[in-house]
This record gives sequence, structure tokens and C-alpha cells, in this order.
Amino acid sequence: MKGAVLYGPGDVRFEERPDPKIIEPTDAILRVTAACVCGSDLWPWRGIETFPGPQPMGHEYVGIVEEVGRDVRNVRPGQFVVGSFFASDNTCPICRAGYQGRCVQAQPIGALGAQAPFLRVPLADGTLVATPELPSGDLVPSLLAASDVLGTGWFAADAAAAGPGKTVVVIGDGAVGLLGVLSAKQMGAERIVLMSRHEDRQKLGVEFGATDIVTERGDEGVARIRDLTGGLGAHSVIEAVGTQESMMQAIRSTRPGGHVGFVGVAHGVEIPGLELFFAEVHLLGGPAPVRRYLPHLIDLIWTGRINPGKVFDLTLPLDQVAEGYRAMDERRAIKALLVP
Amino acid sequence: MKGAVLYGPGDVRFEERPDPKIIEPTDAILRVTAACVCGSDLWPWRGIETFPGPQPMGHEYVGIVEEVGRDVRNVRPGQFVVGSFFASDNTCPICRAGYQGRCVQAQPIGALGAQAPFLRVPLADGTLVATPELPSGDLVPSLLAASDVLGTGWFAADAAAAGPGKTVVVIGDGAVGLLGVLSAKQMGAERIVLMSRHEDRQKLGVEFGATDIVTERGDEGVARIRDLTGGLGAHSVIEAVGTQESMMQAIRSTRPGGHVGFVGVAHGVEIPGLELFFAEVHLLGGPAPVRRYLPHLIDLIWTGRINPGKVFDLTLPLDQVAEGYRAMDERRAIKALLVP
Repeated sequence: MKGAVLYGPGDVRFEERPDPKIIEPTDAILRVTAACVCGSDLWPWRGIETFPGPQPMGHEYVGIVEEVGRDVRNVRPGQFVVGSFFASDNTCPICRAGYQGRCVQAQPIGALGAQAPFLRVPLADGTLVATPELPSGDLVPSLLAASDVLGTGWFAADAAAAGPGKTVVVIGDGAVGLLGVLSAKQMGAERIVLMSRHEDRQKLGVEFGATDIVTERGDEGVARIRDLTGGLGAHSVIEAVGTQESMMQAIRSTRPGGHVGFVGVAHGVEIPGLELFFAEVHLLGGPAPVRRYLPHLIDLIWTGRINPGKVFDLTLPLDQVAEGYRAMDERRAIKALLVP
Repeated sequence: MKGAVLYGPGDVRFEERPDPKIIEPTDAILRVTAACVCGSDLWPWRGIETFPGPQPMGHEYVGIVEEVGRDVRNVRPGQFVVGSFFASDNTCPICRAGYQGRCVQAQPIGALGAQAPFLRVPLADGTLVATPELPSGDLVPSLLAASDVLGTGWFAADAAAAGPGKTVVVIGDGAVGLLGVLSAKQMGAERIVLMSRHEDRQKLGVEFGATDIVTERGDEGVARIRDLTGGLGAHSVIEAVGTQESMMQAIRSTRPGGHVGFVGVAHGVEIPGLELFFAEVHLLGGPAPVRRYLPHLIDLIWTGRINPGKVFDLTLPLDQVAEGYRAMDERRAIKALLVP
């Protein structure tokens, strides 16, 4: 088969890779229906994250089960499934507490390369969730979103304790931030402030539930949030960028006792302990435990209550994967869907 | 009157200060029954925190109400009261959410100097809690502890989500850490591991509810906690020191999805964002909202269910306040109680 392989900064290739095969009896092989490019794929593509050699890319996927190992019980060939970007057993104490991304057996799907026509998914029973039946094509983008970007926005909103009566600020207008807006709306937030300077993204943010748009950043952004919240700061802040500025903006925009959910992969970020002490905010971030939320998210999508697939504003055949990376890097696209 | 004034590193004096008077109609004047030296008083005393000029010291206090301003409704002269180290109105949105230490009108008692025979307490209605009647003398140390050190240990255990079935690790065997042990025990923790190298403190820790003692620190301490928790890390970790080493030890000792409650004033601490991201632990710290807990803590003390006053292993007349600082700095005392 041919799939995406990253060689170096700006150099992602569509090239021959070995067909995946069952290795462990707990594996499944999927025929990938759709995959996509993640904001986090851009870190190594931009050279900000280093990697030892050519590596397969992609960790967001939906597909049809092609084959399962002999110990797989929960999914079977022919089913349409959604998985998470970390394989997890879903039975260890960490998984049972709801943190499947840090399962004691966690394996990153990224290392296996989901931007390909076939994918081996380890720990299939713990990782994959089947849809009630085969989905119509219009549901596929939304189900694909559940695999990471929606699950991550949902985790961020959950970590930020979004809920009824709350003012939620969302820092970052990428796909994760926008779906953080959607998630906060689903959780009943009263007011949702999206920090965004891009008109197309503002528009989608409003469609997803944003009640206010703030274009300022950094200290000016913080001052605007203080203005909007009677000087107190927001109850809940979603950080979906991953820079020093965005992290400090998040902490400083939150009222004492409030919650910051951070899902931007915090490259080079240092949080000053004394400032965090006196900020007195709850802080939780990390790889989203998508598996925890998948059954609920699939249900919301299946019943038409949410349409997170709208974040895909570019669809490409898989052989044009390189253009997907470029379009997202240049902000010509919010998120690129890839069809093998 | 004469009270404690800090002039510079190691130089705390017992000297003439103006008698406090009602300034605002919401003030109360207390005749201080007992005060004490806080671990945080040692930061400026050691020269680690700078300050502009001679400053009155002390922020932990119990006493008898001597006089109240004309707007004070909740306490009256003759009552025995316990207060918090931040005056708070207890009515603003931040207070109502339970974060009285960051009240929009918060005033630090430290600036007023509780190591003195009399103390002006601002926002008396929101700050002070009266005991059911005048306490017997043996209850005074415990009630004094509620004013900060117990309230801080309690907040740390609460922020660390201590509770039934949980393994709680306590980093720091000062009075706050020891009362973190007591608090975790009250909250029903199953296993409480005290990190301590001092035999007298270990003994008190065990009396307060510690089930295990670990003497290793830093990475070795983390490895011991991993060993004790099946490789997963603790559910709940209390950080009660405030150094880079103790903060990282806390984060690294916590399992993914677990909680760190940090109450050591984090001097010079920088938390690496990427490590915190992949640690995926809940982090909450800051000045303890003692006022939130005071009614419950006073009740626990009044009914004899807890005896936090045991952390005072040195009692001095107020005029020997300087010896109190020295004894704590040299670890000859866990905590010094001062009697005006």
C-alpha cells in the first residue's frame, strides 16, 4: 500500500509502505475510510519536534474492520469503527479512572501511521468503538472528528469544568479550539468567548455556539476577558495552542478557583510556580482520553445533535496528503480530510 | 503595645507598635489569645523573600473580640473567634465559590501583624468565626492551628482529592504536611505515605494517620512511591514544601488522572509544560481558603475528633518571638506558639 511518511521539515511523502498485518492476537486491521491531518502533525512537519528518521504519519481514523486477532471480542470484521489516537486496553486502573491516553499499555497510533489505506490497531477491544450500523457518508467526517479533534476539544472543555452558568473562554481557533466551543455549548455553558482573528473561523465558532469573539491576544486579550467578566476572569478556559503566550493567557484569564483545560501540546512552555500559586486555578491538560468520551460522542453524532465534521474545510485524496499539510500550515484550511 | 517586627534576615524584634484601632466600620479589634510562627514567615526571615522596610509579622491568630466597627453584625465583643490569614468579605463571587483567600476585597493579615497582643481584623463579618462558647485552654492550640496551618493542610488534601480508597502522598513534614496527613485521614484516605527524614515528625505523622514513611527524596522518592503503588503513582499528592525539587517530586509521584494539591509557596519554581502535559495530573494550589473550612474544622476540634494543636511543640511568651523563629529555622521545633 501507499501511505504518508514524513522525512523532514516540510517533506511528507506518499510512498510505498508494508501492508499492516496482525502481530498480536489483540490487534485489528482496519480498511481506513477517512483519515486527516492533525495540528500536532505540524509540529514535526515544521521541524519544531525532532524525530529519528522517516516516520509514518497520522493518528486520526475511522474505518471498516478487515481482520481481527484471535483474542479480539468486542469488534468484528465488517463493522465501522472509530478509534482513539492512543491504543489502550481500557481495563487497567488508569483506563478505569478515565485516562485511557495514559493506559499502562498505551501505544501511540501515530507511530503506525493512519494516513494510509490500512491500519493496524493494537488492543482493538479497548481502543475501537463500533457504530450502531454502517454510517451514511455524510456522517463520516463527524465520526472521524470524534477520533481526536472533537475528543480533544471535549476533554479540554471537561477539564475546564465547562457547564451551566459558566463563562468559558477558548484560546485557539484551530479545529480543537472550535470543537472546544461546540463541547462547551453541549455542556450547557452560558457564555462562550472565542479568541480568534480569522473571520472564517469566527463564523464557524459562532455556529458552534460562541457568544462573543475577542481578537486581542496576550495581555490585551487577558484585559478584554477581565472586562467581560466584571474583573473576575472566566470560570473556565480552554487552551488549545500550546505556546508560552497562550498558556499564560489562559492562566491569567481564569478567575481564582476556576479551571484551565490545556490541550495544546505545550512546547517549550515553563509555568512560573509562584504565579500559578497566587492565580489559584485548577490546571489539567494532556493527551485527551478520547476513548472515555467515544460512546457519548458517537451517540451525539449518530442522532444528529452535533456536526463536528464541519471543521473539515478541505477534502483531498490521500495521495495529495502533502497539500493537506501545506494548506493547514498556511492557514488556508482549518483541517484537511484525507480519503484513501 | 509591643509586637513582632521584622527588620531583615534573622532580625525579628519585639518592640513598641501603635495600638490598633477601628479604621473601617467593618473592622474588629481582637485581644490575641495565641498566635504563632508560620513556615512562610521564615521566607522573609531567611532573606529569600524581600520586603521594603520593617514590617509587623504574624497572620495566625485566635482571640477575644474587644471592639467592633458599627457595621459588624456576625461577631460581638466577648466572643472567642478564629480568623483566616486573609481577610475576606465572604460575599463576593470568588468567596461564594469557596476561594476566600482570593476575595475581591482580600487583605493579608500578615501586613497587620498578628504576633502582637492586639490585632485589627478587617472585614470582620466575613473573616471571623466564633466558637460556640469560650474554649477551655487545652483547645486553644488546636483552634489556633485552624487559622492557617490546619486549614492549609486541609485545602491541600482537598485539592489533592484525598478520599476513601485513595493513596495519598505527603511531601513535606513541617506542620502543614503533618496536618495534611491528619486531613487526608479525616477524608477517609486508605493509605497515607509521609515523606520524612525526622523521627519526631514521623512519629507525629503516624499519630495523625500516616500508614507509611518514605525517607527518600527527589527521583529516589518518586521511585519508592512508584514501588508502593504498583508502578502507577499515587492518586493524591500533597506538596507542602515549595521548592523545584518538591514540586517535580509531587508531579512525578502522581498517577495520570491523579491530583496534586500544592500549598508550599512555590519560590523560584518553574513547571515544564510538556512534562505536565504528559503527566496528565490535576494541579491546584495557592493560599488556602481557610474561611471555607473554618466552621467544619472548629466543629471537629470542639467535639474532640481532631487534635491538630499537637504540631505546637514549643510555647513561648510573645516577648521571646525571636527564639520561635530561630527554633523553627533550625528545626528544633515543628511550630512555635506565642502567648501575648
